[in-house]
Amino acid sequence: MSQPELLRYAYLGPDGTFTEDALRQVVPPDEGVYLPQHDVASAIDAVREGRADRAVVAIESTVEGGVTATLDRLAAGDPLVILREMLVPVQFTLVAAPGVELSDVRRISAHPHAWVQCRRWLARFLPHVVHVPATSNTAPAALISDALRTPDAPDLGFDAALVPPRAVATYGLQPLAQDIADNADAATRFVLIGPPGDVPPPSGADKTTLVVHLPDNEAGALLAMLEQFATRGVNLSRIESRPIGDSLGRYSFSIDAEGHVTDERVGEALMGLHRRCPYVRFLGSYPRADAVRPTVHIGTSDADFRSAREWLARVRGGATT
Amino acid sequence: MSQPELLRYAYLGPDGTFTEDALRQVVPPDEGVYLPQHDVASAIDAVREGRADRAVVAIESTVEGGVTATLDRLAAGDPLVILREMLVPVQFTLVAAPGVELSDVRRISAHPHAWVQCRRWLARFLPHVVHVPATSNTAPAALISDALRTPDAPDLGFDAALVPPRAVATYGLQPLAQDIADNADAATRFVLIGPPGDVPPPSGADKTTLVVHLPDNEAGALLAMLEQFATRGVNLSRIESRPIGDSLGRYSFSIDAEGHVTDERVGEALMGLHRRCPYVRFLGSYPRADAVRPTVHIGTSDADFRSAREWLARVRGGATT
Amino acid sequence: MSQPELLRYAYLGPDGTFTEDALRQVVPPDEGVYLPQHDVASAIDAVREGRADRAVVAIESTVEGGVTATLDRLAAGDPLVILREMLVPVQFTLVAAPGVELSDVRRISAHPHAWVQCRRWLARFLPHVVHVPATSNTAPAALISDALRTPDAPDLGFDAALVPPRAVATYGLQPLAQDIADNADAATRFVLIGPPGDVPPPSGADKTTLVVHLPDNEAGALLAMLEQFATRGVNLSRIESRPIGDSLGRYSFSIDAEGHVTDERVGEALMGLHRRCPYVRFLGSYPRADAVRPTVHIGTSDADFRSAREWLARVRGGATT
Amino acid sequence: MSQPELLRYAYLGPDGTFTEDALRQVVPPDEGVYLPQHDVASAIDAVREGRADRAVVAIESTVEGGVTATLDRLAAGDPLVILREMLVPVQFTLVAAPGVELSDVRRISAHPHAWVQCRRWLARFLPHVVHVPATSNTAPAALISDALRTPDAPDLGFDAALVPPRAVATYGLQPLAQDIADNADAATRFVLIGPPGDVPPPSGADKTTLVVHLPDNEAGALLAMLEQFATRGVNLSRIESRPIGDSLGRYSFSIDAEGHVTDERVGEALMGLHRRCPYVRFLGSYPRADAVRPTVHIGTSDADFRSAREWLARVRGGATT
Repeated sequence: MSQPELLRYAYLGPDGTFTEDALRQVVPPDEGVYLPQHDVASAIDAVREGRADRAVVAIESTVEGGVTATLDRLAAGDPLVILREMLVPVQFTLVAAPGVELSDVRRISAHPHAWVQCRRWLARFLPHVVHVPATSNTAPAALISDALRTPDAPDLGFDAALVPPRAVATYGLQPLAQDIADNADAATRFVLIGPPGDVPPPSGADKTTLVVHLPDNEAGALLAMLEQFATRGVNLSRIESRPIGDSLGRYSFSIDAEGHVTDERVGEALMGLHRRCPYVRFLGSYPRADAVRPTVHIGTSDADFRSAREWLARVRGGATT
Repeated sequence: MSQPELLRYAYLGPDGTFTEDALRQVVPPDEGVYLPQHDVASAIDAVREGRADRAVVAIESTVEGGVTATLDRLAAGDPLVILREMLVPVQFTLVAAPGVELSDVRRISAHPHAWVQCRRWLARFLPHVVHVPATSNTAPAALISDALRTPDAPDLGFDAALVPPRAVATYGLQPLAQDIADNADAATRFVLIGPPGDVPPPSGADKTTLVVHLPDNEAGALLAMLEQFATRGVNLSRIESRPIGDSLGRYSFSIDAEGHVTDERVGEALMGLHRRCPYVRFLGSYPRADAVRPTVHIGTSDADFRSAREWLARVRGGATT
Repeated sequence: MSQPELLRYAYLGPDGTFTEDALRQVVPPDEGVYLPQHDVASAIDAVREGRADRAVVAIESTVEGGVTATLDRLAAGDPLVILREMLVPVQFTLVAAPGVELSDVRRISAHPHAWVQCRRWLARFLPHVVHVPATSNTAPAALISDALRTPDAPDLGFDAALVPPRAVATYGLQPLAQDIADNADAATRFVLIGPPGDVPPPSGADKTTLVVHLPDNEAGALLAMLEQFATRGVNLSRIESRPIGDSLGRYSFSIDAEGHVTDERVGEALMGLHRRCPYVRFLGSYPRADAVRPTVHIGTSDADFRSAREWLARVRGGATT
Repeated sequence: MSQPELLRYAYLGPDGTFTEDALRQVVPPDEGVYLPQHDVASAIDAVREGRADRAVVAIESTVEGGVTATLDRLAAGDPLVILREMLVPVQFTLVAAPGVELSDVRRISAHPHAWVQCRRWLARFLPHVVHVPATSNTAPAALISDALRTPDAPDLGFDAALVPPRAVATYGLQPLAQDIADNADAATRFVLIGPPGDVPPPSGADKTTLVVHLPDNEAGALLAMLEQFATRGVNLSRIESRPIGDSLGRYSFSIDAEGHVTDERVGEALMGLHRRCPYVRFLGSYPRADAVRPTVHIGTSDADFRSAREWLARVRGGATT
C-alpha cells in the first residue's frame, strides 16, 4: 500500500532559523518535507512555481514592523493565501569559534534585523564593533562551523555572530553572551502560505488579511476606506502603508481585519472596499495565533445581518417595519 | 357590465383648499370620489379605517417646515406608505363680505400657517389687526359665505380672512388684497398616502421616506446614523427631528433619502439602520415631484453592488481578486 | 430715596398659563412687572422694541417638539439671547361653566398643543367632540368666565375647554375631568430671553444654543457640521431642523450644545462652525434646568486645551515635544 | 579677518553615494565640511552628539517606502528636526574590475535596496546570480577599487556590484550595464536634519512632519486621529505605520501634513493631536522639494481662522453674530 505524499514546506533556512521554529509549530520534520530557501522571496515563489506546497515566512516583528519582502511579495504576483499564523519568541546569542573571547570581537556578522534588536546591548558592551551584514540569522553560524572543519580556511571577515539560541547546538558553536535582545518580550509573527482554494471554515477567532489601494492620495480617501470597516463594526488589528512603487505619494495598505471572510460584517466591508477602491486583494482568513475572539459591536453579528436582510426583503415586498 | 369602482380620496377640505389643488393633480373630480375631512389626522385615519382608499395631505411647507400633524400621524399607528408627491404653489388673498373695506378690518381669521406666511404684509398694511385662528385655510371663507346667506347671522368674530386664491370664486367673496404671501415662491409639498402593498417600481428619480429613532441621545448616534447613508453614497434631501414624546431629549428623525428602496445602495443603508437603530419605519419609495435624478457616486450604482457581491462570492469560494 | 426699577417681563398671558408658571420660577409677582402678551411673537418683540426687559417663552414641549414660533422668532431679527431655562410640568383639566355635564360636551376649545396632548383621553371618553382652536391655553377659560358674568352672552361656540390646572381657580370654573394629558410626565421647557450683553459666567452645568445654516443641502454638509462638535468632544442635547424659508430643501439647524461659550472646546467648535457655515447665530450660554454637568471626554477639558496651546507655542518656538 | 566656520555635514558615504548627490543639492563641497558616515544611524547621531551640524539622510524611496532606519532614529532620542527635503533620481550601473565580462558574473554585491530595485533586470539577464549584501551602495565599488591597487588581494567574495552612476568614474570601474533599475522614474527623497531651534518661516509650499502614537489599537482611534486633520482641512501627503516596538499590535504613525506649523489650520490640528494622542513629536516644517502649494479648503485659510477667533471674542463679549 502506498504512503501518502508528504507536503513540501519552503522556508528561510538553513537549520536553526526562527523560521524553522515556526515551521515546527506547523508540522514536525518527519511529517513534512522541509525545503530550506535562502530568502523569503524564494520561499514564497517556491509555492507559486510548484516546487513546494506551502511556505512559512515572517510577516511582522515586534521591533521592525512588517517584513517588507513578505508583504510586497504577497501583494503582487500569482495569488497566494495565508492559511495560519504562528508566533515565535525572538532572542539572540552572540557566538564565536572556540577560543575567541568577548574582548577579541571587532566585527560581528548579523542579519540586519538581528543587529537592530541587540543595539542597546552592543552599544554598551561592544561599542566599537562593526556590523557585517548577513543574509540570514544562521548564515554566519554555518560559515563559522564550516571554517572550523576546513584546514587553512580564509578569514571570514568577522569574529563573532548574532544567532538564534537553537543555532548554538546545531552548529557546535561557543556562546559568548545569551539573551541579549533589547526587548525581552520580542516576538515575530510567521504565516503559513499556500495556493488559494477553498477558504478554511471560521474558527471563531479569525483574522482576514487584505491589500487595498486607495482611489487617490488624499487623507479623505484613507478616512473613507476606514469608514467601510467602521460602519460595519469591523475592527482592524494591523494597518501598514507600503508605497505602490510607481511614484512617491501613492500607497497600498496591508490590513488585518478581525473576523472571517464568511462573517457577514466582514463580507459587507469587503464589498464596500471592492466598490470604492481601485484594487483589493484577499490574502486569506485564518485563525489568530492568540485565539482572541473579535469584539462584536451591537447590531453587527451574523444574526443581525440576516435579520436585516430578511427585513429588507419584507419591506421591498410591501411591509413597513 | 359593471362599472369599475372609483377610488375614494380623503383630503383636508372643504372646497378650495390647497390640498384640493394637490388632489386635482392626482385625479380629476370625475374620476375619483373626493372625501373632504376637517383635519389632516382624519384624512390619514380615513385610510387606516377603510373609509377611504387614499389620502392627500401636506407634508412640508417652504415657510413652516415639516407639517407636524402629518409627520407624527404617519410615524406611528397602522402602516401607511407614501405613493407620490405633488408640489402646490402657495399664495393668499385677503377676502371679506361685500361692503367691507380694508380700513374696516380689525380681526382676520386665518389658519396659523397662512398667518405666518403673510406676516410682513400684515405688519405693513394692517399692523394692529388681531389673529383669529382657523382650522383650515377655507373654513373662514365658508363661514363668511354662510353668514351672507343667513338673515340675522351672529357676528363671526372676524371681519376678513386669508384664503387660497381659488376660494374667492368658490365662495363668492370679495378680494381686498391679492398675492400677499411674503415669499412669492412659497410652495407646499403634498403626498398621496395609501395602505402598504407592493412597492411601485423605480422611476429613475425617486425618494425614500423613513422614520428612524436613534439608539441614544448623543451627537455620536446621529453621526453614526448619517454615516450609514454616507458610506453607501446615499444623499439625504430632507432630515427633520421630532421629539419621541416620552421625554425631552429623545428624538425621532424623519428622513427623505435619494433613491428607491430597490436600489442596492438604499437597501444596504436601510439594513445598516435596521441593525443599529431601535426603530426604523419605511414610509415608501415614490417619484420625486421635481423629477431630479439622484447623484450616483463612484462605486455605488446597482452594477457596482452586483459586481461586488459576485466578487465576494468568488473570494469566499477561493479566489483572491 | 428712590426705589430701584422693577424689571418688566413679557409673557404669554393671560393669568393662569403655563408660561406664568415658568415666569413665577424666575421672579415672584411682587418683584417684577408682569406684562401678559397674546402670543409668543409679541412677547419676544416686546424685548426687541423696549416695551419689556425680559420675555418668558416656551421653546420645547415633550409632545410637540420645538415651539416653532419661538425658534423662528429668535433665529432672525434683532439679536436676543437666552439667559435661563425653566421646566414646567404639563397637565390639563377639562372645564366648563357650572351646570354643564361631561355628556353635554360637543365642542371643546383648546390650544392646538393642548388638544394634541389629550388626544387619547378625548378619543376614549369624547370620541365625537369637535376641536375649536384657541390662541392660548387660558383664552377659553377667560371667555367662559366673561360669559358667566354677562347677561344674554352670545354662544361661545364651544361647551368646554382644556386648561392648565391653575386656571380652574383663577377663572372660577368647574372641573369636568382632571390630569387628562396622555403623558403623565409631560413637561414644557421655557426660556428667559433678554437683550445680548455680557455673557453670564459658567455655572458648571450649562448649555449653549445656536442657529446654524448649512453650506449646502447635502447629507455631507450635516455630517461635516456635526464633526465640528464631535472632534472637540462637544455633545449635543438637542438638534432640530427648520426650513430656511426661501425654498424647499434648505435647512437651518437649531442646536443645544453641552457646555458654555467660554469653555475652550465649545469655543473651538463655534469657530469651526463660523469658518465653514454661511450663518451662525449665538443664542446664549445659560445654566441647564436639570443641572446635569456635561460629559468631558478625554483630552477636551479647558486644561487640555490650554496645555495644547502652550505646547503649540513651544513647538512654533523651536521645541519638538 | 577671520573666516566664517563652515558647517559640518554628516551623510552616508563614502564618495559616490546617492546621499552625496542629495548633499550636493544643499551645499557644494567647498562651502561645507563633508563627513561621510557608514550608516544612517551614525549620520543622525553625529548631529545629536555634536560631531556634525547637519545630517543628510534618505527618508523615502519610490520602491522601498519609508527608510525604516531614518524614521525610527528620528522618532525617538534627542530632538532633531527636518530643515529641507531633496529629491534624487535613482539609477544603477552594474560594474566590475576591468576584464570581467557580464557572462562571468556569479555573485553581485549590492545594498539590499539596490538589489530590490534591479530585480527584474537581474532575473532576465543574470537569473542565477547570488546576492552578496553590502552596507551601502558604494562600499563594493570601493572594495573593487582597493583590490585593483593591491597585489595579491584576496577574493572579494563577489564579481560585480550595483552602484550609483557617479561611482563609476569616482572609483575607476568598468560598466557592464547601465540604467538597469526596473523603474526608470525611481527617486529617493532625502532630508536635511539639524538640531531644533527657530522654525524657518513658511515658503508657501511647505510640509510638516510628525510622529503620532494612537491612544489604543482600535480602527476607531486611527479614524479619530485622521479626523483631527480633516476637520481643519489639512491634507496628508504621506502616512506610514511603524510598530512601537514594545508589543505586536501597537503602532506609531509617521505623517507628512500639507502646510507649515505656523499655519492656523495646521496649528489647530496639532493641538487636537496633542490633546487626544499619548505622544506627538514635531519633526519640522520645511519647503516641499516639488514646490506644490497646499490645497486650501473653504474656511481654512489663516484669514478664516483669524476672523473666526475675532468673532468668538465678540460673541464671548456679548455679540450674537
